[in-house]
Amino acid sequence: MHTRTVFLISDGTGITAETFGKALMTQFDVAARFVRIPFVTTVDKAHQTVRQINHTGEVEGKKPIVFTTLVDMEIVDVIRENCKGMLMDMFGTFVNPLEEELGLKSHHRVGRFSDISQSKEYLDRMEAINFSLAHDDGQTNHDLAGADVILVGVSRSGKTPTSLYLAMQFGLKVGNYPLIPEDFDRRQLPPALLPVRKKLFGLSIDPQRLSDIRNERRPNSRYASLENCRHEVAEAESMMRRTGIRWLSSTNKSIEEIATTILQEVKPERLGY
Amino acid sequence: MHTRTVFLISDGTGITAETFGKALMTQFDVAARFVRIPFVTTVDKAHQTVRQINHTGEVEGKKPIVFTTLVDMEIVDVIRENCKGMLMDMFGTFVNPLEEELGLKSHHRVGRFSDISQSKEYLDRMEAINFSLAHDDGQTNHDLAGADVILVGVSRSGKTPTSLYLAMQFGLKVGNYPLIPEDFDRRQLPPALLPVRKKLFGLSIDPQRLSDIRNERRPNSRYASLENCRHEVAEAESMMRRTGIRWLSSTNKSIEEIATTILQEVKPERLGY
Repeated sequence: MHTRTVFLISDGTGITAETFGKALMTQFDVAARFVRIPFVTTVDKAHQTVRQINHTGEVEGKKPIVFTTLVDMEIVDVIRENCKGMLMDMFGTFVNPLEEELGLKSHHRVGRFSDISQSKEYLDRMEAINFSLAHDDGQTNHDLAGADVILVGVSRSGKTPTSLYLAMQFGLKVGNYPLIPEDFDRRQLPPALLPVRKKLFGLSIDPQRLSDIRNERRPNSRYASLENCRHEVAEAESMMRRTGIRWLSSTNKSIEEIATTILQEVKPERLGY
Repeated sequence: MHTRTVFLISDGTGITAETFGKALMTQFDVAARFVRIPFVTTVDKAHQTVRQINHTGEVEGKKPIVFTTLVDMEIVDVIRENCKGMLMDMFGTFVNPLEEELGLKSHHRVGRFSDISQSKEYLDRMEAINFSLAHDDGQTNHDLAGADVILVGVSRSGKTPTSLYLAMQFGLKVGNYPLIPEDFDRRQLPPALLPVRKKLFGLSIDPQRLSDIRNERRPNSRYASLENCRHEVAEAESMMRRTGIRWLSSTNKSIEEIATTILQEVKPERLGY
């Protein structure tokens, strides 16, 4: 397999360049080595970055691939003019046609995050994370009505990471509540959930996969046994069907995919769906 | 201010298209309304998406902006040929020059996430999230040595969201441990942290900002008073200096920026720094 060094360069955190660069590179049979260089905000740093790229190219005898999301033209120019890698200027490529379509000049302004910590969106996100932590695993019934979504499902079906992801990425207040053997015996949802039934969304999971996950935590326990996992999953799914709770199977899905699917179903008002 | 509808279309979750599209649009004085359409994996869905875009364009009397990260050529073609919006084909734009440089054909393969839940990277990430939750706010001293990083700082300095972000985004096991008045009285780090001193990274914060944040939780308390916040922050910073702990101020920084800065300083081995 070919190997290639891929630089991800940004005046901010470089997360956009990284997400995009990685997605593109997975389309090739290449063993990519990613180097993220964030906060390239001065001409000096741009020259330093160029030296690093060119040095890598010389040592490896192959042109490095260079994704940039740089906004400042002066800095992009330093890289364009001196870098011996293959430049993919994500920003410049799209900003010109956009300027034309919108009939507006772009700001070319770096540091859009500079005041983000004071913004409403940011504070909402912090509040959402705190809410989701406080309401993890049914820890409290306090203010469940304040949740945007409440995830339910058997232990280890993926509720916690999904809750945190929805809070962190979208600023949603997400509770999560386990469905446990007692609930199955009573054949009823946990009583605290009845008033907020419309906010519920279920996660299920393949019993074999659940058993594998539980075995990592508590090897050879009854809790982790395939038989018990089959029973719990069947009971949980039948309860969700009976009570009309929307649900999906988290098996083979990434957190991002689970979260996106939930958003499509729930369409929380505050996200303007 | 102009308004404009911006579609973010993907065969996956659409998160890449969203991150990038939003970053670009913040460069313009335009009130953008974002519509994310994930999981466009069939020609049928592509036609449906085109209808939605064209309908929006007609109603608003303005060309919608359309960012796509679609991989399947057949689906992109449906959109390219029928959509009356302004198409920004992020994938196609870069994949051709990449094919040339690498001397390889791209897979044009959708669903790179399909088996992600079985991958080592994914399992590491889950484990990291569990670790970080278990070690939130100094809840346990068990296996602190297993952490990649341990954040320290006064209560509400941003440790928890930063820990979770590092775990979720980078699969790092991040503990966090509060510095409390007792520690300042003893003028020593919490004893549990002494054996893992090299893993510590400090967060500080402007006392006024800290007081604002604490006042939201416990209004008019001594805990939240500016005087007390000044005292705690000064003590914490002096302790970090004295004990040689690297630290940064979280004031005015987004979680992403804090996390990126920490990574630059700490350079965790497992991320190949």
